[in-house]
Amino acid sequence: MTQTQFDFAGRVARARSAMEAHDADVLLLSFGADLPYVIGYDSMDTERITLLILPVAGEATLLIPRFEAPRVGLHPGVFTVLPWDETDDPMAMAADVAGSPASALVGDRMRSSFLLGLQERMPGTAFSVATGLMKELRIRKDPGEITLLRAAAEAVDRVVVRLDATRFSGLTETELSRVVGAMTIEEGCDVAAFAIIASGPNGASPHHHPGERLIERGDMVVVDFGGPVGGYQSDTTRTFCVGDPDPRAAEAFTVLHEAHQAAVAAAAPGVAAESVDRAARRVITEAGWGEYFIHRTGHGIGLEVHEHPYIVEGNSEPLDVGMAFSIEPGIYVPGEFGMRIEDIVVVTAEGADRLNRSERNLHVVE
Amino acid sequence: MTQTQFDFAGRVARARSAMEAHDADVLLLSFGADLPYVIGYDSMDTERITLLILPVAGEATLLIPRFEAPRVGLHPGVFTVLPWDETDDPMAMAADVAGSPASALVGDRMRSSFLLGLQERMPGTAFSVATGLMKELRIRKDPGEITLLRAAAEAVDRVVVRLDATRFSGLTETELSRVVGAMTIEEGCDVAAFAIIASGPNGASPHHHPGERLIERGDMVVVDFGGPVGGYQSDTTRTFCVGDPDPRAAEAFTVLHEAHQAAVAAAAPGVAAESVDRAARRVITEAGWGEYFIHRTGHGIGLEVHEHPYIVEGNSEPLDVGMAFSIEPGIYVPGEFGMRIEDIVVVTAEGADRLNRSERNLHVVE
Repeated sequence: MTQTQFDFAGRVARARSAMEAHDADVLLLSFGADLPYVIGYDSMDTERITLLILPVAGEATLLIPRFEAPRVGLHPGVFTVLPWDETDDPMAMAADVAGSPASALVGDRMRSSFLLGLQERMPGTAFSVATGLMKELRIRKDPGEITLLRAAAEAVDRVVVRLDATRFSGLTETELSRVVGAMTIEEGCDVAAFAIIASGPNGASPHHHPGERLIERGDMVVVDFGGPVGGYQSDTTRTFCVGDPDPRAAEAFTVLHEAHQAAVAAAAPGVAAESVDRAARRVITEAGWGEYFIHRTGHGIGLEVHEHPYIVEGNSEPLDVGMAFSIEPGIYVPGEFGMRIEDIVVVTAEGADRLNRSERNLHVVE
Repeated sequence: MTQTQFDFAGRVARARSAMEAHDADVLLLSFGADLPYVIGYDSMDTERITLLILPVAGEATLLIPRFEAPRVGLHPGVFTVLPWDETDDPMAMAADVAGSPASALVGDRMRSSFLLGLQERMPGTAFSVATGLMKELRIRKDPGEITLLRAAAEAVDRVVVRLDATRFSGLTETELSRVVGAMTIEEGCDVAAFAIIASGPNGASPHHHPGERLIERGDMVVVDFGGPVGGYQSDTTRTFCVGDPDPRAAEAFTVLHEAHQAAVAAAAPGVAAESVDRAARRVITEAGWGEYFIHRTGHGIGLEVHEHPYIVEGNSEPLDVGMAFSIEPGIYVPGEFGMRIEDIVVVTAEGADRLNRSERNLHVVE
């Protein structure tokens, strides 16, 4: 549970520099990706609090249930472990350690029950979300992180190859979701994080939850799945067709493929994130399908499946070398079909490097 | 994603009665088990907020990303759907709908980023955690909920039977964890929620994360796993031994088994939750192993793996008919071995009804 391949002492130092710039006295991280990013320990997501209390200067403390302390690995010079017992009041212990700072930044995924408990015990402290600070630290991936993102992408690409040889018709969405999940693990992901299967008219719901619908000849099937390698996530979407597609769907897919290529071509250092969204949207809109592209073009990826930068209208932030994100335009026609193509790319000096390399065409299966 | 078998209009009415008693003007539920409990819709856990805004009187509103709105099923008379677009400010929309209530209760698992956003936009509102209110609603399971808990328990019990015929030696913990996860799904759980495999000395870490340790002859192996059926969770632990156990471990197991029986026998309506903990702890302590039983005896279970009631010293709340929880004493000897026995029980007028029925003995495997 404790990673060792990254320079956590260096990350703590960077966090402290950022805290100074943000005028923050203490950083409070519980469950979520910020904690493993900063110290390499991935907290369980339970009602028992695990909390890193990182003051801008002085010793960092990891408050943790005593019986989970054996999960924490080496941490030379990075933080001290403070175990709490089942009958202790860990929120009071956290407030004691934190003292009475003027300002505290809290990780965005901390449970509200923990935040409200801390606010009650630290009435003089102004609490804000740490998203801005953590984004600065996490948004540019270093070579070690990109190696893991690439390994995760290659694992799901191998699943796509195996799906080309899988018979879809006769399976329910739920059954196919389980097949994809099992393959995701077999190909090397630590877990199968998610596997959306949206068939026929269900494809028009981008986050469709796989159900009991039987996949049949003529269906378009959106398959959107992923899992992490060494904590770093993958996320890819390919669209399958059971037998030959109908001409209208085939026409839409040609447009979608072109939109995807346009967005990938647009991504480069210095380009605004929203420009990548616009590049995809322009192709789809000009071809007359604009009303059916109902979500942003992409999201950053790393220790979380969704993180900064978001590839969405309104985000004028310039892309930079090391940023990793999805490019995933889609076309969703209610009552008829849906389709999406999704690759993860990393920005390099030369432009977008695609981590996913499986075929982007419409995959015709049985 | 939207359950239909429960009376959600009735649950909303009960929530409103409880809000009156708690002097709360509005209940705000996002990702977590409270939301599906009250309205049957299970939000995704992402940076895009889904939020039920339930005023003590008047219309309830479900704020949701527009492209996820198709996930929400029928909701006749229970709530109105308010979709937000990718370029909207959903926190401002939420604050508009909520108005300026004096007091708001928020679900315990809401992300801190959402809570801080709401606090900023609703400066006149006092925010508290909804745990107490939701506990009153959720702690006593109705017959429909118990049917699902029982189905989930029976699924994992079938996995235990299959594990008795599985060769453990030669597998790593990670490999065995994957085997258990696959079986959990094959036996009918919606997903494999978790599968702790803690072998040999790793068994002494109750929440050990399965790793690359090779399981070998002579090892004690703690297997703690579960998954939901229809949203309701299972959670069972059995201890295996690869070949015959050493006499010291066998002696400890006899004590553990007796402690488990004592705790089950102690559970009945009107009995304090902590009394069940004490019943298990007394047996283990009197046999001289007390220092190695390092966690509470159990936790409630339902839509969440861990929920109220907690079976822990300090919880003097009386048990009541319909409460469902784990009974899971353990003995953890650092550097040597660990062991745990865990069943889910439901309190009936006659005492504790065990939902898990697989053999509770030390399971000897190859």
